[in-house]
Amino acid sequence: MPGTYKLVELVGTSPKSFAEATRAAIEEAAKTIHHMDWFEVVEQRGSIADGKVREFQVTLKVGFKVER
Amino acid sequence: MPGTYKLVELVGTSPKSFAEATRAAIEEAAKTIHHMDWFEVVEQRGSIADGKVREFQVTLKVGFKVER
Amino acid sequence: MPGTYKLVELVGTSPKSFAEATRAAIEEAAKTIHHMDWFEVVEQRGSIADGKVREFQVTLKVGFKVER
Amino acid sequence: MPGTYKLVELVGTSPKSFAEATRAAIEEAAKTIHHMDWFEVVEQRGSIADGKVREFQVTLKVGFKVER
Amino acid sequence: MPGTYKLVELVGTSPKSFAEATRAAIEEAAKTIHHMDWFEVVEQRGSIADGKVREFQVTLKVGFKVER
Amino acid sequence: MPGTYKLVELVGTSPKSFAEATRAAIEEAAKTIHHMDWFEVVEQRGSIADGKVREFQVTLKVGFKVER
Amino acid sequence: MPGTYKLVELVGTSPKSFAEATRAAIEEAAKTIHHMDWFEVVEQRGSIADGKVREFQVTLKVGFKVER
Amino acid sequence: MPGTYKLVELVGTSPKSFAEATRAAIEEAAKTIHHMDWFEVVEQRGSIADGKVREFQVTLKVGFKVER
Amino acid sequence: MPGTYKLVELVGTSPKSFAEATRAAIEEAAKTIHHMDWFEVVEQRGSIADGKVREFQVTLKVGFKVER
Amino acid sequence: MPGTYKLVELVGTSPKSFAEATRAAIEEAAKTIHHMDWFEVVEQRGSIADGKVREFQVTLKVGFKVER
Amino acid sequence: MPGTYKLVELVGTSPKSFAEATRAAIEEAAKTIHHMDWFEVVEQRGSIADGKVREFQVTLKVGFKVER
Amino acid sequence: MPGTYKLVELVGTSPKSFAEATRAAIEEAAKTIHHMDWFEVVEQRGSIADGKVREFQVTLKVGFKVER
Repeated sequence: MPGTYKLVELVGTSPKSFAEATRAAIEEAAKTIHHMDWFEVVEQRGSIADGKVREFQVTLKVGFKVER
Repeated sequence: MPGTYKLVELVGTSPKSFAEATRAAIEEAAKTIHHMDWFEVVEQRGSIADGKVREFQVTLKVGFKVER
Repeated sequence: MPGTYKLVELVGTSPKSFAEATRAAIEEAAKTIHHMDWFEVVEQRGSIADGKVREFQVTLKVGFKVER
Repeated sequence: MPGTYKLVELVGTSPKSFAEATRAAIEEAAKTIHHMDWFEVVEQRGSIADGKVREFQVTLKVGFKVER
Repeated sequence: MPGTYKLVELVGTSPKSFAEATRAAIEEAAKTIHHMDWFEVVEQRGSIADGKVREFQVTLKVGFKVER
Repeated sequence: MPGTYKLVELVGTSPKSFAEATRAAIEEAAKTIHHMDWFEVVEQRGSIADGKVREFQVTLKVGFKVER
Repeated sequence: MPGTYKLVELVGTSPKSFAEATRAAIEEAAKTIHHMDWFEVVEQRGSIADGKVREFQVTLKVGFKVER
Repeated sequence: MPGTYKLVELVGTSPKSFAEATRAAIEEAAKTIHHMDWFEVVEQRGSIADGKVREFQVTLKVGFKVER
Repeated sequence: MPGTYKLVELVGTSPKSFAEATRAAIEEAAKTIHHMDWFEVVEQRGSIADGKVREFQVTLKVGFKVER
Repeated sequence: MPGTYKLVELVGTSPKSFAEATRAAIEEAAKTIHHMDWFEVVEQRGSIADGKVREFQVTLKVGFKVER
Repeated sequence: MPGTYKLVELVGTSPKSFAEATRAAIEEAAKTIHHMDWFEVVEQRGSIADGKVREFQVTLKVGFKVER
Repeated sequence: MPGTYKLVELVGTSPKSFAEATRAAIEEAAKTIHHMDWFEVVEQRGSIADGKVREFQVTLKVGFKVER
């Protein structure tokens, strides 16, 4: 991977699973960032309501090539 | 979130996925803890039997408001 | 668990989820390692193509008994 | 400190500072836990509203002697 | 918190305290980032001059909702 | 290990060794917690008096099954 | 260093050394970021081809003053 | 900062706040160490008496230039 | 220590102490690995039965020279 | 990178630099491991003799595809 | 513990156990450092000879009051 | 390595590379510390001026035998 890359940190959310929360963040980010290459999971959390998981939250670092 | 909160550490288990193990721990805890607000994943492990994943295990910290 | 155990570090991959990537690594490893007992998730990453998650990657430590 | 001690994890909150959030959690906990001896700061976070810090949040471990 | 969030990393400074340095960074960031929701303290450092603390420095991650 | 488990954090002390401090905490905890299954060492510290180790202190997480 | 600073995370690459990969990332970033002050190494990795190091990769955090 | 620097680790204490405990340690150290340049917070703890914070304790690394 | 070394990760067990569990793992490994040079403790855990420590478990990395 | 990968941990040494120690470990490992893909730096240490660096030591994790 | 404390980092060694290595370092340090109060275990390692543990090595931080 | 060792923490600087910054710190320290045995890299940072790396900075722990 010659060149220089940048990492941005995102939090994706999903009522279903950590994998869906990951997909949601990547697909949202794709609207403004091009050429995303890889992601790394930094943290997994969630919110609870009425004694059930309401939302899975995944913090990701996403790497993409710096284009000039 | 004004007030004071407490964190308890739980391990949930599931034969299907880390997301199911998370749900199982939260729903079991809901039987004795009220007003749970959020969770954080601390560790993900599992057991293996006959060369297959037998069980997904998720260690969580669960936060809830201290009520008087 | 009396006796001595060994840990090996593996990366499993799946287009579907972290849980599937975990299963894939364990089942591949079962072809050469016997008596695997447990696993621990060390890292979760993935690759992105065309603005979508292409692959979930899970780094695992897998423990098994040393047999003589 | 002979004997056995227990640690509980708390989150204190304050609109003013991390030190006030620490004091608030300890004083709230004192209503139900006796003989608290020490605390350790685990995490410092906060919430933001209208572009200003609304609340300082401090996660603490608090140690106290197990009494019989 | 449904939706996707972004985290940016900032360093705030203050001659008075860590809490003031945190406030300073959030208020400066509010000039260009809207809808900031939470912050996490990553690191606390400072500079020393003439044998006294000259400046408290707080590294923060600040989370805000990605708007389209 | 199907079911849900809880982790509590304890500090055991001993004038003799880290292993004895571990045993002391487990045996004290057994008076109130049933079905303890495993422990993990979190931290090892101690106190010093007159230039000698006075006390070994071991912080443990202890896991046990949640019974209903 | 009075004022507020921002940190961005970059990955630089070089076939020669970690120091060259660091220089490459800083010099590329200088094309769009002014007043960069310091960097911190977060991770060092690389790729291998034909049994030799093909590329050194350095992940950096780079700090610069927020200008208005 | 050309030259070689040394880091020493100190614990400062204050009944009022973490910021005061930091100042106290730096000012005490200034009596024997010259040319101190920066500090980093390593740990924040405290003691509790009668259900209130008795003392804030801050562990710092302090950097200063090695003079010949 | 010129040359190239390899690290393997082992878990040793003992009913008596962490030191004995360390010795047990090294002596078992010596049956198949030659020229072991050093070890590093990665984790200390254990199992509990009937309210007593049943087994001390030590995870080690063991370094040895790669021989051709 | 579909398929399953394995990670091995190596220590390379060089009297010249961390980059040379990395190259040395990879090239030595290439004699027995095929299809190595990437490496990650885990630790950097060294030995000192007569007040000078005698040897740079780099601990690496090296990833390669599991072939059947 | 009002006042300012200093921490020094030591490595103690023993052919018998980690507890003995801890005691050895404290007792050696007592020859030059007065009023040592507490220690924290930072790392546990050891050397191996002829397939047996030759030496247990414990890295400690030791805290003592700064006297004027 | 029988006996007791001490660790000191140093920061070396160089305009050229991390390896040179390491050598600079060790050689400066050799003027006052005898019998240095090993070093461990704790942190790698640097300063930037005019969009270029001005200085590589390496924080090291250096171990040496305590002599009486």
